[in-house]
Amino acid sequence: MKKIINDPNLVVQDMLAGMVAAFPNDLKVVPNTTVVARKDAPVSNKVGLVSGGGSGHEPAHAGYVGQGMLDAAVAGEVFTSPTPDQVYEAIKAVDGGAGVFLVIKNYTGDVMNFEMAAEMAAAEGINVEQVVVNDDVAVEDSSFTTGRRGIAGTVFVHKIAGAKAEAGGSLEEVKAVAEKVVANVRSMGMALSPCTVPAAGEPSFVLADNEMEVGMGIHGEPGIARKEIATADEIAQELTQKVLDDIEFNSGDEVAVMVNGLGSTPEMELFIVNKKVHAMLADRGIKVYKTFVGEYMTSLEMAGCSVSLLKLDEELKELLDAESKAPAFRS
Amino acid sequence: MKKIINDPNLVVQDMLAGMVAAFPNDLKVVPNTTVVARKDAPVSNKVGLVSGGGSGHEPAHAGYVGQGMLDAAVAGEVFTSPTPDQVYEAIKAVDGGAGVFLVIKNYTGDVMNFEMAAEMAAAEGINVEQVVVNDDVAVEDSSFTTGRRGIAGTVFVHKIAGAKAEAGGSLEEVKAVAEKVVANVRSMGMALSPCTVPAAGEPSFVLADNEMEVGMGIHGEPGIARKEIATADEIAQELTQKVLDDIEFNSGDEVAVMVNGLGSTPEMELFIVNKKVHAMLADRGIKVYKTFVGEYMTSLEMAGCSVSLLKLDEELKELLDAESKAPAFRS
Repeated sequence: MKKIINDPNLVVQDMLAGMVAAFPNDLKVVPNTTVVARKDAPVSNKVGLVSGGGSGHEPAHAGYVGQGMLDAAVAGEVFTSPTPDQVYEAIKAVDGGAGVFLVIKNYTGDVMNFEMAAEMAAAEGINVEQVVVNDDVAVEDSSFTTGRRGIAGTVFVHKIAGAKAEAGGSLEEVKAVAEKVVANVRSMGMALSPCTVPAAGEPSFVLADNEMEVGMGIHGEPGIARKEIATADEIAQELTQKVLDDIEFNSGDEVAVMVNGLGSTPEMELFIVNKKVHAMLADRGIKVYKTFVGEYMTSLEMAGCSVSLLKLDEELKELLDAESKAPAFRS
Repeated sequence: MKKIINDPNLVVQDMLAGMVAAFPNDLKVVPNTTVVARKDAPVSNKVGLVSGGGSGHEPAHAGYVGQGMLDAAVAGEVFTSPTPDQVYEAIKAVDGGAGVFLVIKNYTGDVMNFEMAAEMAAAEGINVEQVVVNDDVAVEDSSFTTGRRGIAGTVFVHKIAGAKAEAGGSLEEVKAVAEKVVANVRSMGMALSPCTVPAAGEPSFVLADNEMEVGMGIHGEPGIARKEIATADEIAQELTQKVLDDIEFNSGDEVAVMVNGLGSTPEMELFIVNKKVHAMLADRGIKVYKTFVGEYMTSLEMAGCSVSLLKLDEELKELLDAESKAPAFRS
């Protein structure tokens, strides 16, 4: 295992300290927790947004904490759900009196632990609502999931629900727009190489020198096909077509595109994929409103990418464009 | 070789098309060139800023094209200097009548080709000035360089000279502030793994499973020591100390910090390095004004990182903070 770390058991703690050192005016770690929160949290009378999950997906989720996006992100151990008590700490830290909204990626552990925390908070009189993101069209049910997995499309939920909360939306309004994003976002990914969880020390799976896996999850969960590596155009075609088949798109529709790198795929390759995605959308008369190319939801040093499409309406466009001061999503 | 590409010989062309597709309102490719320019170039009566070099360092350099930073970036083949005629096309494309300023990383090919282009432009009556960035303290002279190499610190030159030009600075003023940045920025890097140039198909060097190379260049040029992999703290210590030893820092000085990933190093690890860098600076009474952690100057999928420090004064702080709309550097 080749990693720039100190102790495999301290990577999350060291990372959070290094992150807050980088952005001391914007972020804080809630004392004695693995919760990264806005420096000014709780913001009075604003709905507080909390997300999080296992670490190893950086910049998700703490990179999306900031004005206009999340109020707090809870970091679990690498690829491991944060415990209910940590989520509960996050909820308390961002409760400004207007309720707290949880954005949960659909993994069994995350859903269970976030829901348990919500119950703990409700018992304290905090109003909590949630959305579960399940944008990955690759497979139904997987290693750690019942139903579809939540992957890179989750970042659109953070951005848009965050903008709604920042604009003064009520808990019900934030929930409604988050559900609208979930209903309109689809993603699919593929991997060329595995990644190594620091505490495990060994790669989580093996791919041969000429192999790729299509539909692989962001923790290395199995996809739909392991096959010979294809060209960028063929890969983009396969991912994008599966997304397009899953939701009704009509000529004239507007979308946001995200081409997300999983960790070690050079930006050069992501832009090559983006070229084909745009060509496919143009062929179908689908208009691209905005494009995001980069590392938004990674799997440590896994090589590969995912393609996400979010179907937009006027409300979603406006909220997508709203200002964000989160370190990993400046707009 | 596992890469998401179509044809190894078309990676630059495909990448540029995918990049302009992503940012159609901000960027354009100058027809029949590998020059990415601001959509509104040339900007009348503004000094035009041109940088560039071999591809494979994304987001450098085209990601830094935009209001407040570069007017154009010239993309060579992977790890290969752009030809003088391409640089000349960039100069012509951004000449708004106030002269053109070239930011050149110190590699023999880049310096030669940019200077030749400057002469071609001068013969056409365009006023051209330049700065050569040589921030890498690792080694004097290297595979492709006489003197020190230019690496991640170059991004600070783009940002600060770009802000000066955007604010209406004259060609002489832009040159003066760029030289001030070069005089005050130092960097050093290390690598854990090599990268593969697509057209070559094989990694450019080999490191054993327990080895790292300290001081390695962004094209895999030799560093100062190949040794057993150390902890993140030891690596941060070695890189930062070498930088601190190279330029006079006094207690109370203010710096900008950049912890740059070379391609496949997870952001988690960069933040762990950043923690130690901040601790070392705090120990010496050096105040961190702003921190940048992420992939700013990469080497395809090389694993490793670099640490850059830029000593600041009031002018540099103001220009560093000025607005930038470049896709890879929003501020």
